[in-house]
Amino acid sequence: MSPNPRSAKAAASPNIAFIKYWGNIDQAIRLPANGSISMTLGGLETQVMVTFDPSLQADELDAQSAEVGSDPLTRISQHLDIVRDLAGISSHALVETQSNFPSGAGLASSAAVFAALTIAACEAAGLELDSIELSRLARRGSGSACRSIFGGFVEAFSGEEDNDAYAEVIALADHWRLVDLIAIVSREHKQIGSTAGHALASTSPLQAARVADAPRRLDVCRQSILGRNFPPLANIIEQDSNMMHSVMLTSTPPLLYLSPPSLAVMEAASSWRTAGLRVCYTVDAGPNVHCITHADDAEEILSRLRTVPGVEEIIQAPPGAAARVL
Amino acid sequence: MSPNPRSAKAAASPNIAFIKYWGNIDQAIRLPANGSISMTLGGLETQVMVTFDPSLQADELDAQSAEVGSDPLTRISQHLDIVRDLAGISSHALVETQSNFPSGAGLASSAAVFAALTIAACEAAGLELDSIELSRLARRGSGSACRSIFGGFVEAFSGEEDNDAYAEVIALADHWRLVDLIAIVSREHKQIGSTAGHALASTSPLQAARVADAPRRLDVCRQSILGRNFPPLANIIEQDSNMMHSVMLTSTPPLLYLSPPSLAVMEAASSWRTAGLRVCYTVDAGPNVHCITHADDAEEILSRLRTVPGVEEIIQAPPGAAARVL
Repeated sequence: MSPNPRSAKAAASPNIAFIKYWGNIDQAIRLPANGSISMTLGGLETQVMVTFDPSLQADELDAQSAEVGSDPLTRISQHLDIVRDLAGISSHALVETQSNFPSGAGLASSAAVFAALTIAACEAAGLELDSIELSRLARRGSGSACRSIFGGFVEAFSGEEDNDAYAEVIALADHWRLVDLIAIVSREHKQIGSTAGHALASTSPLQAARVADAPRRLDVCRQSILGRNFPPLANIIEQDSNMMHSVMLTSTPPLLYLSPPSLAVMEAASSWRTAGLRVCYTVDAGPNVHCITHADDAEEILSRLRTVPGVEEIIQAPPGAAARVL
Repeated sequence: MSPNPRSAKAAASPNIAFIKYWGNIDQAIRLPANGSISMTLGGLETQVMVTFDPSLQADELDAQSAEVGSDPLTRISQHLDIVRDLAGISSHALVETQSNFPSGAGLASSAAVFAALTIAACEAAGLELDSIELSRLARRGSGSACRSIFGGFVEAFSGEEDNDAYAEVIALADHWRLVDLIAIVSREHKQIGSTAGHALASTSPLQAARVADAPRRLDVCRQSILGRNFPPLANIIEQDSNMMHSVMLTSTPPLLYLSPPSLAVMEAASSWRTAGLRVCYTVDAGPNVHCITHADDAEEILSRLRTVPGVEEIIQAPPGAAARVL
C-alpha cells in the first residue's frame, strides 16, 4: 500500500428482518444461532467513507459515527483490523458516516453502517472480495449487516463456523411490490443495544425452542416470498417477531423493547389484516413498528396508521438495492 | 336423596397465579401441563347456591351465572354431572351465583365460581369430601379452581392422572403481608376465554420449553414465599407471566391479551422496583395488571398506579381465606 491516504466511499441500506436473528453461537465472531430473512429497505441509506491514512496515530470517527452502539470506535476499529489483516496493511483510518434515517431505534442502523463500512474499507484497502465474502465479513461487524450487502429479499444462513455464515439473495427488489411503513413512536436511543441484547438471548428458557423452530419459519417465509403469497407471509412474520420478543421478555434481565404505542400499532395492523388488508407487523430491538404491506394497500394503511395514538411519523420503504461503492 | 329440594351455599375467592397454569395434558379433565402457585385474594368473593330439585326438567342458571365462559350452562351441568355421579343422584339443579368483582377480565372469576360450586354442590348432594378431594374435583370445572379451595399461598401439582392433580397450602394467609393491587384497565369481557386459550397452548413452538422450565420457577417461587424474600419472588413472577404471554403471543392463532395500558403498568411496576419499592407485575388471560406488593409499600404503589394513563380503577386484595360452606 502506498504511503499516501487511500479513500473509498460506499452506501448501504438497512433491512427489516421478516425472520429475525437473535442470539449468537459464538458472540466474538457473531455466528448467529439461527438463519434469518429480510427485505432491504430502499430510500434509506447510510454512506460511509473510509480513509486509510499512514499519518494517523489511531482510528478516528466523525461525530455521527459515534452513534453506532455504546462503544463505536472500538467496534469499528475491530472491524477495520479484520480488513487490515486481510489486506496486509497497518494504517489507521478516518471513518465518516452519514445516514438519512434515525439510528438506535430498531431501524437496523448498525446493519447499514457495517455493510457500507465493509465495502468502503475493502475498496480503500485494495481488497477484491466477492459479495459472499463481503457478506461474511460484514457479519463480523454486525450480525444483520451480512444481509444489507444485498438488495431485495435476502436470506442469511446460520452455519457452524465463520465460513458458512453469510447471506444470499432470495429474490431481487422488483420481485414483489411490498412496502415497509415504519411507524416511528419514539426517536430515543434504545436502552440496551442489539449487541448486548444478543448476549442475553441464551439466558431465556425459550431461546432454544425458538432456535429449534427456525428452519420451519424460514421455509414458510422463503416459500411465501417466492410465491408472492401474502397471508402466510404475514402470519409467519408476526409469529417470528413475537417469538423474538418472547425471548427478550424472558431473558435475565428481561428486555422490554415494546412500548404502549408499539402494542397499539401491532393490534391495529392485525385487525386491519383480519378486515382484508394486506398488512402485518414486525418489531426489531426498539419500539418502532414496521408494518409490511403490499404497495396497492400502502396508501390505505398509511392513512390509518396516522390515526393510531403515539405514532409520530411514518417512514416508507420499498424493497431496496444492494450496497455499492460510490 | 329425598324427593324434596336440597340446597347449599358456598363462597370462594379468586386467586392470582404467581406461577401460571397454561395448557392441559388432557383437555377433557383439565389435567394441567405444569404446576402452579397462587395467592388467594381476600375481599373478593363469589357465592354460589346450588339447589338440587327433583321437579326441575333441566339444570338452570340465574342471570349472573350466565357470565361464566362462552357456554356456562353446559360447563356447569357437566360439573354437576360429576357430583351427581359421585353422590348417586339424578336431580337437576338450580345454580345461583353472585360476585363482588368483575368477571371475564383476567381476575380468575371462573376459579372462584367452580371452587364455590364444587363445595356447594357436594354439600347439597350430601357428599363428604376432604379438601384435597374438593380441590381435585374443582379442577375438573376450571383448572385454577383447584387453588381457590384453599386460602393463603397455594401450590397446584400437575400430575400424570386425575388423582395427582390437586392443590395444597404452602403457607397460610397471615404468613406474609403481600397485597395484590389490581389495575383495572378494561372491564370488557376477554375475546377468547381461558378454556379456549388453554387448548391453543400446544400450538406455540415455545410451550414445551415453558413447561419443561416450570419446576425451576416453582422452586424459586415456593422458596421465596417460605422465606418471605421479595426480590427473587418479584423476578420469577414477572418472568413467569412473560413466559405465559410468550406462549399466548406465539400460538396459532396468536392471543394478545395485553393492551397498551397493560404495558404501561408493567413498565411502571418494573421501574418502581428498580427504584427500591417492593412491587412486581403479573397478568392473567386479560388486560388487567396485578401489581403484587408488600403491605408496607402498598399505599405508595396505589398512589403511583392512579397516575398511570389507562388505569380506570384499582382493586386491593390481601391474602384471603379458604373457600367455605355458608
